[in-house]
Amino acid sequence: MNLLDELTRAFDQSLIVSCWKYIFPVLVVLYLFIFLYDKNRYGGKKTKENSSTATTNAVKEKLDGIEYVGEIDSGEFDPTPVLEETEHIPFAGATVTLNKDPLKAATHFYEIVNNRRSVRMFSTRSVDASVIDKCIHAAATSPSGAHTEPWTFCLISDADVKAQVREIIEAEELVNYQQRMSKQWTTDLRPLKTNHVKEYLTEAPYLILIFKQTYGFKADGGKKQHYYNEISTSIATGILLCALQAAGLNSLVTTPLNCGPALRNLLGRPVNEKLLVLLPVGYASDECTVPDLHRKPVEEVVVKY
Amino acid sequence: MNLLDELTRAFDQSLIVSCWKYIFPVLVVLYLFIFLYDKNRYGGKKTKENSSTATTNAVKEKLDGIEYVGEIDSGEFDPTPVLEETEHIPFAGATVTLNKDPLKAATHFYEIVNNRRSVRMFSTRSVDASVIDKCIHAAATSPSGAHTEPWTFCLISDADVKAQVREIIEAEELVNYQQRMSKQWTTDLRPLKTNHVKEYLTEAPYLILIFKQTYGFKADGGKKQHYYNEISTSIATGILLCALQAAGLNSLVTTPLNCGPALRNLLGRPVNEKLLVLLPVGYASDECTVPDLHRKPVEEVVVKY
Repeated sequence: MNLLDELTRAFDQSLIVSCWKYIFPVLVVLYLFIFLYDKNRYGGKKTKENSSTATTNAVKEKLDGIEYVGEIDSGEFDPTPVLEETEHIPFAGATVTLNKDPLKAATHFYEIVNNRRSVRMFSTRSVDASVIDKCIHAAATSPSGAHTEPWTFCLISDADVKAQVREIIEAEELVNYQQRMSKQWTTDLRPLKTNHVKEYLTEAPYLILIFKQTYGFKADGGKKQHYYNEISTSIATGILLCALQAAGLNSLVTTPLNCGPALRNLLGRPVNEKLLVLLPVGYASDECTVPDLHRKPVEEVVVKY
Repeated sequence: MNLLDELTRAFDQSLIVSCWKYIFPVLVVLYLFIFLYDKNRYGGKKTKENSSTATTNAVKEKLDGIEYVGEIDSGEFDPTPVLEETEHIPFAGATVTLNKDPLKAATHFYEIVNNRRSVRMFSTRSVDASVIDKCIHAAATSPSGAHTEPWTFCLISDADVKAQVREIIEAEELVNYQQRMSKQWTTDLRPLKTNHVKEYLTEAPYLILIFKQTYGFKADGGKKQHYYNEISTSIATGILLCALQAAGLNSLVTTPLNCGPALRNLLGRPVNEKLLVLLPVGYASDECTVPDLHRKPVEEVVVKY
């Protein structure tokens, strides 16, 4: 019990204990002040609006472990929907297709996209700007949550800007491969022969950086909810890939880890935009090789009921 | 100073202060015990492996506020990459395209996908199963993180299964619209005239439920990382939409909130699969109407550098 006595004595003589009777009331007053200030600031609103969002999020996280929706706290509730409330119009179904025979059309489309491979070795051969424009235009027909069209396509052809993009990405990717990515990850990437050196970033005639807009702005400057912005922008990316392949162009979907903010700054994009993917676009070089990959047989990916 | 004196006296006499000299050493010992136990349990491993993952996640969250990668803790590190390490093969670029003239091809493709509209009113007119198969086959050509192909397409044509899907979704959607979705959300959806009643779930000849596989399995039963599985599966969804439109079929991308686990159980899918989207597929009904929406002009979505 000698040690306990020693500790007790040391404790009784310590500065914190002797001052505690003065510190304690100050902390109580500070806490009350913060509590009241916070309550005053949000008014009654916090209880009603946020608790409903909190329930949604809690349920979602518990059940699925994922956050799909992308709802943000946009402040005041706006009784006017983002879209105009107009009469619905008749729709005659798909009239522009690939072939009048559905099976011929589907087969032809399959053959086109099945010819696509991710390309990392690009020729510097130029591409007609209007072709790229049309492909992006096609991507922008994508559906999106509540038709919010939450995407921005940054198209880079300027050699200096491409060089700056490459500099940012290679510097970050060096750290990614050496420190940030797990050993399993870099091992799984080894068959693709990727590393932090990304020559395609300056060799491909175009870079398309696709940003998802996590929220938007209404005419009055208020924030606009962009529901499911990541899924929507990824779907648009899928349409872009089809368009590029249809036009005979090659591309590669990349996700430069940790480069988003630096690239956003370089391109002067606002903070509501987050980089989703970056695609070099052009023609495969004459020396281009690709890993000898095969796709899963269709029976492995389709289950019928 | 009367109040302060009162507080001081009350504090000096309180139970916590008089017992504090005994509580404090117990807390110190408890903390030391937990610290040592934790260290012992993880050994040296925690410092190396986990701290690198922790850094990655911390950096990602701080910089971008989003979790793209989808890395899971798969237990032991496996020195064999998921893909075979084979020689790379020459690739001649895109050889199957829509037209030899790139601009004609891109324009034709744009016209096809620009004709697509999200359809909520389906005819019961049947669709040749082989057309749907080809469209899903096209979607499965999508690129994916480290070529993990992290998707499962559940194709439902059976009327009973469709009815059960509808029952699950309508019950959840009623709660979603009434309680879980924010007032802003239901307001923003009003122009689309959606509610919890989803007739298309039983009227459309096919339902395609696309699951993202959050991880997979190796031959030895161990878990396999599925990097960027949500983005990859969404890109596959974009390709599917193009295929369906090319074949003259109509569809709708839906994200049934909170229905994932119930639908996964209904279809007997494993826990590593999470429902990403559900698409009714078929032909628009003769009475089909769509909201009078317009797409943003291309200048608003493209920025050139």
